[in-house]
Amino acid sequence: MTKQGLEKVRVFSLGGVGEIGKNMYVIEVGDDLIVIDSGLMFPDDDMLGVDVVIPDISYLLENKHRVKGIILTHGHEDHIGAVPYVIKQLNVPLYGTKLTLGIVKEKLKENGLDKNVDFKIINNKTKLIIGTTTVNIFRTNHSIPDSVGVCIETNQGSIVHTGDFKFDQNPVDGVYSDIGKMAEIGENGVLCLLSDSTNAERPGVSVSESAIGQGITDAFYTAKGRVIVATFASNIHRIQQVVNASISTKRKVAVSGRSMEKIVSIAIELGYLNVPTDTLIKIQDVERYEDDELTILTTGSQGEPMSALSRMAKGAHKQIAIRPTDTIIISATPIPGNEKSVTKIVDLLYRTGAEVVFGQKNVHTTGHGCQEELKLMLNLMKPKYFIPIHGEFRMQHIHSQLAHTCGVKKEHTFLIDKGDVVEFTNNEARINGKVHSGNVLIDGIGIGDVGNIVLRDRRLLSKDGILVVVVTLNKANNAIVSGPDIISRGFVYVRESETLLEEANKLVTVTLNKCIDDNINEWSALKSNIRDALSRFLFEQTRRRPMILPIIMEV
Amino acid sequence: MTKQGLEKVRVFSLGGVGEIGKNMYVIEVGDDLIVIDSGLMFPDDDMLGVDVVIPDISYLLENKHRVKGIILTHGHEDHIGAVPYVIKQLNVPLYGTKLTLGIVKEKLKENGLDKNVDFKIINNKTKLIIGTTTVNIFRTNHSIPDSVGVCIETNQGSIVHTGDFKFDQNPVDGVYSDIGKMAEIGENGVLCLLSDSTNAERPGVSVSESAIGQGITDAFYTAKGRVIVATFASNIHRIQQVVNASISTKRKVAVSGRSMEKIVSIAIELGYLNVPTDTLIKIQDVERYEDDELTILTTGSQGEPMSALSRMAKGAHKQIAIRPTDTIIISATPIPGNEKSVTKIVDLLYRTGAEVVFGQKNVHTTGHGCQEELKLMLNLMKPKYFIPIHGEFRMQHIHSQLAHTCGVKKEHTFLIDKGDVVEFTNNEARINGKVHSGNVLIDGIGIGDVGNIVLRDRRLLSKDGILVVVVTLNKANNAIVSGPDIISRGFVYVRESETLLEEANKLVTVTLNKCIDDNINEWSALKSNIRDALSRFLFEQTRRRPMILPIIMEV
Repeated sequence: MTKQGLEKVRVFSLGGVGEIGKNMYVIEVGDDLIVIDSGLMFPDDDMLGVDVVIPDISYLLENKHRVKGIILTHGHEDHIGAVPYVIKQLNVPLYGTKLTLGIVKEKLKENGLDKNVDFKIINNKTKLIIGTTTVNIFRTNHSIPDSVGVCIETNQGSIVHTGDFKFDQNPVDGVYSDIGKMAEIGENGVLCLLSDSTNAERPGVSVSESAIGQGITDAFYTAKGRVIVATFASNIHRIQQVVNASISTKRKVAVSGRSMEKIVSIAIELGYLNVPTDTLIKIQDVERYEDDELTILTTGSQGEPMSALSRMAKGAHKQIAIRPTDTIIISATPIPGNEKSVTKIVDLLYRTGAEVVFGQKNVHTTGHGCQEELKLMLNLMKPKYFIPIHGEFRMQHIHSQLAHTCGVKKEHTFLIDKGDVVEFTNNEARINGKVHSGNVLIDGIGIGDVGNIVLRDRRLLSKDGILVVVVTLNKANNAIVSGPDIISRGFVYVRESETLLEEANKLVTVTLNKCIDDNINEWSALKSNIRDALSRFLFEQTRRRPMILPIIMEV
Repeated sequence: MTKQGLEKVRVFSLGGVGEIGKNMYVIEVGDDLIVIDSGLMFPDDDMLGVDVVIPDISYLLENKHRVKGIILTHGHEDHIGAVPYVIKQLNVPLYGTKLTLGIVKEKLKENGLDKNVDFKIINNKTKLIIGTTTVNIFRTNHSIPDSVGVCIETNQGSIVHTGDFKFDQNPVDGVYSDIGKMAEIGENGVLCLLSDSTNAERPGVSVSESAIGQGITDAFYTAKGRVIVATFASNIHRIQQVVNASISTKRKVAVSGRSMEKIVSIAIELGYLNVPTDTLIKIQDVERYEDDELTILTTGSQGEPMSALSRMAKGAHKQIAIRPTDTIIISATPIPGNEKSVTKIVDLLYRTGAEVVFGQKNVHTTGHGCQEELKLMLNLMKPKYFIPIHGEFRMQHIHSQLAHTCGVKKEHTFLIDKGDVVEFTNNEARINGKVHSGNVLIDGIGIGDVGNIVLRDRRLLSKDGILVVVVTLNKANNAIVSGPDIISRGFVYVRESETLLEEANKLVTVTLNKCIDDNINEWSALKSNIRDALSRFLFEQTRRRPMILPIIMEV
């Protein structure tokens, strides 16, 4: 408490700013910590061998007793994907809407972690008390149903986190963003707004999800044989529209791909997806139907090499071999970084002779609001302070410029990095310090045992391979007893480079003998002499720099 | 010669179909082989450590005496980049326009290969005889000056290769595509057209290069301090427009980046770039001028990590540190696959506080014609047969659909792969056989010594690293004399995984001793026993599959 009786409020991000992915924001109100989202990120190209990346939550663990709960804004991986890792170390209540928690529960179940977790369902009407703080929830539109924004009422004013949002004027399920509630929150005074920057670079407004239904239905009506639709498993509105198009063209729907099967079954069970029982068939049963009676819903819209679509394209899918009469709709845009893997699959599909619908605007739309929608949010909330979140730096930057056009003062905008603390005292804000933040790399079941050194080695190995040099020395006089043996992997074709490797071998012998003559006995010195000589020789000969690993054995 | 006295004509690609890059097409007329272009490709993500990829020219080498010349359509890397590798093995005349050969000569000089090469300059008026065949050249527009198409007159009819082209109605240098000549070629009858498919997916027409001049000039007029423009080094028209904008805003131009410096100097020397002598200054001299008197032209528009722009963004450029008053114009679009590296640099630039112009349509246009231009070419040439080239499969496919709308019969369109031979006899075409084709990977100075096995190993190494297990055995009884020693790289943090590695070590000892007890003596069997046991253990413990390299030494 400050002198005036106002709680100190601190806001920071442990993930999701300066990057797309692993969203995690923390609002400190007095002594209480409220966490918003707990997402993962898929690794960058240079994070070789890494499966997923999650936020470093050391700060939360050091302040375990102060963390009062985690609010999940919606069920996308970049908002809930780290929950299994976090909840293992931090057993606090999980707040989320019915669908969001449905997806999270399934995820925890797979990891044997669903017991003893305190799930708390929220909705648009919820008024929560977390710790000693009142939290309001407001409904938004996004590319997954049941997404919400969060309003944390501190006695300095409200801190609003939008979650991911767009304003869809024709939502597929008829469930609109609660603009009225947002306006009310704005009227009551917003101290600080944290808002989604994903599409800050895109002018205008996003296309309504329901407009896509028409594009999809059109493709269904012109299809001669089976229709195969690849989309994001979590885009339940899209899936609903595919189901609807299937019903109007008298098709059964089969689902392929583990994540798609899982989400479809959760969504049906919880009432977010409306599929007549006789419409859904098993993928094993497709051969019982004529081609023009079939829709196949599948994962793989991002060109994931092991996905169902990818297997179909490569002729490696158990049930589905693409036929020239098939129509394949890629109802998605490649996420930056996935362009090449997607077009590779698309090309394979084209080669089968099938009809391919790809890259057409009428079969996909974004889940994130464009500039006019971001401004609408700003104008509804009328925040005193503004923190653009959920985006790479240039998106945050452009979002902050939009905020200026909506009347937020330049000096009231904070372009934060992970860990930067925005501190509010007496309704005034400033950057004050930094909490620890970072990436935790997950490779297999190891958490945090892959870091810079391991990655540096993997990068080195990936470029020019490795040469292992083994030699056995006599303990007494360091004379060579056996070897040197040189074994290489990922360096050159051994069969075509025999001379090179023979010369390398001679060089090691000469180098070692010279060391012995010079009375250089220490292994580290011997090794670095071998490494230097060999490295120089190989670079001269090949212009490559393989990793060189000298190993000395002693007998 | 066939019975009717008509030469047999065969057309195939050694690179450039089913892919973007390493263009090389071969037209066989009777006994003569005429090669069109000789380009390189930048490696795919999965070609780890590879620098560039060139076409496999075994077929040309096996028919060395029949190859009569290489015609280069323009000076881009994907059309001339393999010349140094090819000319070393195949010393035939090189045909190209003045600028194209100017760039090629510089490239050969760097490799000490410019002596004894027979350069033959061509232009729009050229009528060549190559071997016994007449070859006509026609001028096109592209994102580099002096680009041409090629018409090979066989006595079955003409084979036309468009090169890369767009129809620019306002070319910067006032040099128009020679539509008249194209129409004339068409009137005389085209047997087969090979045409650029790059933008077959894009409807409409491409924006004129000169329209970009306005966008660039606008940005110059609003710039407060220095203007830094990153673009493709070879886009001389773009560079001309940057020079013009600099002159109208009273700025000197400094060039940074080796390839940019090289091409600018060639283009000035050959008269393709018009820069008043006092406008061009050395990059070392920028500090002599006020910020608003300076333009800096630089490479790095594709986010290349070692490029000048990248070094500026990272604060590692010798002369240029980005200032908040700078305006940086990225006058290029990311080539597919480069999106993430470009936005990484853009974000760094934004972080400096500078003005960044990126992703805006008014500062970049394509050099390849869109659908309406492709149709115009088809209608001018009115070919009997059509081979869409220069593109990935879906682009070829869509281009062939465009051709059908222009009256080319479906069965007269050939969607070829590398090596597929389209054979013409008596004015009729069919696919007849395949010549050898493929990728040659260049890593350092090695040509062809990196292939599938080496790449597979690099991929393995890049994912989970390597464990080397060394043990010295007694020759007489196979008893362990020294070791086992386990050394890992790129697998786990050794310091945090001591127990794991100790257990692994014990496991190797146990496995080896068991082998000895079981009288398993052969090294290959010992090694595979070690590999299997260790692999299973490590996967159980970590869910990773590092490469395991057992080495047995004998004393």
